[in-house]
Amino acid sequence: MATPPGFSDRDFQRALTRFRSVVGAAWVFTSDEDVALYKDAYSPLWGEKEEKVASAAVAPESAEQVQAIVKIANELRVPLYPISTGRNLGYGGAAPALSGSVVLDLKRMNKILEVDERNAYALVEPGVSYFDLYRYVREHELKVWIDCPDPGWGSVIGNALDHGVGYTMNPYRDHWDGHCGLEVVTGAGELVRTGMGALPGSKTWQQFKYGFGPHVDGIFSQSNFGVVTKMGVWLMPEPEAYIEGQALVFKHDDIIPLVEHMKYLMSAGIQNCGTNLQSPIRFAVGADPELRKLLTRSDPEAIARLNAFAAERKIPFYSNWFKFYGPEEVVRAQWAYAKKRMSDIAGIQFVDGPFYKFPLTDDQIPGLRDAQDFGVPTLDTFAIGARSNFAPATNGHLGFSPVIPMTGEAVIESQRVFETILQEYGTNVAVNVFPQSYHPRTFVILIMFYVMHDAAINKRTREVFRRLVKVAAEHGWGEYRTHTAFMDDCAAAYSFNDHSLRKLHETIKDAVDPNGILSAGRYGIWPKHLRKA
Amino acid sequence: MATPPGFSDRDFQRALTRFRSVVGAAWVFTSDEDVALYKDAYSPLWGEKEEKVASAAVAPESAEQVQAIVKIANELRVPLYPISTGRNLGYGGAAPALSGSVVLDLKRMNKILEVDERNAYALVEPGVSYFDLYRYVREHELKVWIDCPDPGWGSVIGNALDHGVGYTMNPYRDHWDGHCGLEVVTGAGELVRTGMGALPGSKTWQQFKYGFGPHVDGIFSQSNFGVVTKMGVWLMPEPEAYIEGQALVFKHDDIIPLVEHMKYLMSAGIQNCGTNLQSPIRFAVGADPELRKLLTRSDPEAIARLNAFAAERKIPFYSNWFKFYGPEEVVRAQWAYAKKRMSDIAGIQFVDGPFYKFPLTDDQIPGLRDAQDFGVPTLDTFAIGARSNFAPATNGHLGFSPVIPMTGEAVIESQRVFETILQEYGTNVAVNVFPQSYHPRTFVILIMFYVMHDAAINKRTREVFRRLVKVAAEHGWGEYRTHTAFMDDCAAAYSFNDHSLRKLHETIKDAVDPNGILSAGRYGIWPKHLRKA
Repeated sequence: MATPPGFSDRDFQRALTRFRSVVGAAWVFTSDEDVALYKDAYSPLWGEKEEKVASAAVAPESAEQVQAIVKIANELRVPLYPISTGRNLGYGGAAPALSGSVVLDLKRMNKILEVDERNAYALVEPGVSYFDLYRYVREHELKVWIDCPDPGWGSVIGNALDHGVGYTMNPYRDHWDGHCGLEVVTGAGELVRTGMGALPGSKTWQQFKYGFGPHVDGIFSQSNFGVVTKMGVWLMPEPEAYIEGQALVFKHDDIIPLVEHMKYLMSAGIQNCGTNLQSPIRFAVGADPELRKLLTRSDPEAIARLNAFAAERKIPFYSNWFKFYGPEEVVRAQWAYAKKRMSDIAGIQFVDGPFYKFPLTDDQIPGLRDAQDFGVPTLDTFAIGARSNFAPATNGHLGFSPVIPMTGEAVIESQRVFETILQEYGTNVAVNVFPQSYHPRTFVILIMFYVMHDAAINKRTREVFRRLVKVAAEHGWGEYRTHTAFMDDCAAAYSFNDHSLRKLHETIKDAVDPNGILSAGRYGIWPKHLRKA
Repeated sequence: MATPPGFSDRDFQRALTRFRSVVGAAWVFTSDEDVALYKDAYSPLWGEKEEKVASAAVAPESAEQVQAIVKIANELRVPLYPISTGRNLGYGGAAPALSGSVVLDLKRMNKILEVDERNAYALVEPGVSYFDLYRYVREHELKVWIDCPDPGWGSVIGNALDHGVGYTMNPYRDHWDGHCGLEVVTGAGELVRTGMGALPGSKTWQQFKYGFGPHVDGIFSQSNFGVVTKMGVWLMPEPEAYIEGQALVFKHDDIIPLVEHMKYLMSAGIQNCGTNLQSPIRFAVGADPELRKLLTRSDPEAIARLNAFAAERKIPFYSNWFKFYGPEEVVRAQWAYAKKRMSDIAGIQFVDGPFYKFPLTDDQIPGLRDAQDFGVPTLDTFAIGARSNFAPATNGHLGFSPVIPMTGEAVIESQRVFETILQEYGTNVAVNVFPQSYHPRTFVILIMFYVMHDAAINKRTREVFRRLVKVAAEHGWGEYRTHTAFMDDCAAAYSFNDHSLRKLHETIKDAVDPNGILSAGRYGIWPKHLRKA
């Protein structure tokens, strides 16, 4: 049996006995088979000595039990690693950032405490998944939508805390921006409600974000200062209709005006959601090493050859889906305007996409191309390795995702920079250097790596990943989120003024979690006793 | 000459000498005439012993000088009170929350460091006013709008930090939500950049909010943990056109469906901005004490009498302005849809308001009814006492502004509850119990009190104000912002779990500003040495 760092078996047994006194023996997991369930199936350290593994797990059923466990952990200095549903695959899953931590598994806290249809919000516990909340809404025939990420089994709270994203409108698609109010057990074991929740009997805890005084919510996201036990989430009123359309452009530089138009449509509220920008030419040249080499060059000759190839094969250099939610007459006017606006790009083509009226029938849902665009959670687009042509089947994936400005120039430059590194390493990736509009004002360049249960392959992947983090930072591009294996690397890039932001994080950490018991190492924040000099 | 609490004249002189060594003698103000400029002209404690006054002021010209002053203040334990332009009138102005503090006046730091038209953001220092930023944009003929509050002389940074609001679209109209990235000197004197600003050479500091790891920005708003020296602010791309329209409803209960429709239009992004809800009936009955008494009752007879009065005089019970920014064909479709949607309210009338195309000409601007709706700062709507019929002229005003749910029922209930108290005290108020849609999902009930340079009147006002805070809290409604004179009262209402949120604020305060030198008492947060047991 594993133990937390520095713990003797006997000391650890004593701690487990105390945990059992809080949650009952059935909810403290210590057998190898049980603890193995908390391994990260997608770990890029799978099977290696450095793989991050838990020593045990404890599953409370209430905020009071969380508080009791945190207090015991403080007393005995047991490192805890809270997870919600533990489905944060690609980012560490259920496995702790510090090996030997006890996983604080919140899956039993799965109550949907309130769903208010009129004011379009919910109050949930950490064990509530997107599937759970969706089913509740659909069963009760409420005229609200959830916004969900690709896989629907994740936690509504966990995803928001990790700054996860979805596919409907602003602010709902940015899951942290769509939250409103928290209940938190701090590292010191204090139960705190933020925002309006601090006012007893508050009528607007899930409706007004700030409360009175400092807005502290943000410090509990992507951090290790507290355990969130309740969260308010804004729901999207069901729109009447939806229309989408595609714009296709055929030249290398067309991305520049295309992004300018897209940005205007988004920031001016005409297209109040994300877009889906793709580069069909990249797929087309993928099989031909010589053509693919052109993607790493920025000279006029290379661009001319790519343009000629695109023209000859009639393959768009870039394509983009625009989406519009609202009353039929409004969304039709919006898409018509978008086409008119973009028609100054020579050779641009438009494809009118499907039109839907809501609510969708049960028959319509399975036929949707991207159910997430309609707030319908699935597991369809999850198995990125499995849906690729890669053989043998992969064991998982890993996302490298730096943030770049929303300009065509930044898309071109970042694609070239990253493509050069990928070709240099000859690394197999699942999804290649795509700009995603995950947030209102920037693109995230998404490169999905395959993860295998093969140490040699994974070692290479880690090497490339770390190289990408460094090169991205040299260009002023930083990661928005990462796997636990790379949190120190990504955090290290945020080094302004001798890492003064990290020092501020550490100052808050020491104040709010003085014994450093929560999620040591998460997002590069280590408690005092584990901090490198 | 005043001194900070506990300071001898000699100790204080020594501190001032040190400050002079940083900023030069010309920028340390100690004469009575100079220090009087930092009085709060709108203080509800004007001329009384308890009035909050500064001991001196020091005006740095750079973040480095701010850092140097904060370090000296730490060494000598001098209480500092940072202000931006000092125009936060109604909320304390330039006067410190703790009498005897040295005002850290940031007005010299007034550089507009960057305005990016393509990606629609600016980077500013604290001394930059809305007028400054507006003039810059207009002189450079940039196709972006600022969002400004009523008075244009305030600081873009100061207003955002105080959770101030404006009148254009989301997220711009919520000034804190419209910020992106900070540079802060913490209470301990550390210079920190938040979000992407922590990445040296970052390309997205003003474009991506979260950075990597905890999102700490919120703790520097409505607080006293640091001095913000730079802030990014998102600008709104200039829309092509604007249309507004008014809906008038004539019965007491019509507010319920009216708010439901308004809420749908707002949360579904059809009307992506605030509205202007008014209650003409309240003005009409204002002069008649017997009729006004009916406003405090919720029985059917009272409601029937008010409905009859409204019908007889053809005065709307409620009216609301709807605003739409966007391409002409889109905004026309949106307003047409809004009217169609609301037509299920019996007797509703619509007034089509003005239509504009942008940019406005210099000739058009003076004729605008509410220039702020178009991002044009003015001082027109500032002198609330002066523009009323109140005689003699007032000296200032003060806002009581609790947050209520966005429902007609909450509007009715809060108006009745507050009206009852106002009538009981017979208090003269400038603006009476209006629901403002300052934020995307809630109303703020705004009651503006006159402030006079008359201790007896002000004492009465303070009494009513504190009573309102208490009664509001009993109903689950908390303040979103308040004058320094009432910060302790408002903060005290946020008492869940034995004031555990306040304790968290204090824990962060002690960690980030360990000597408690910054803005003691602001938003009810006191440093350890001044904390009540």
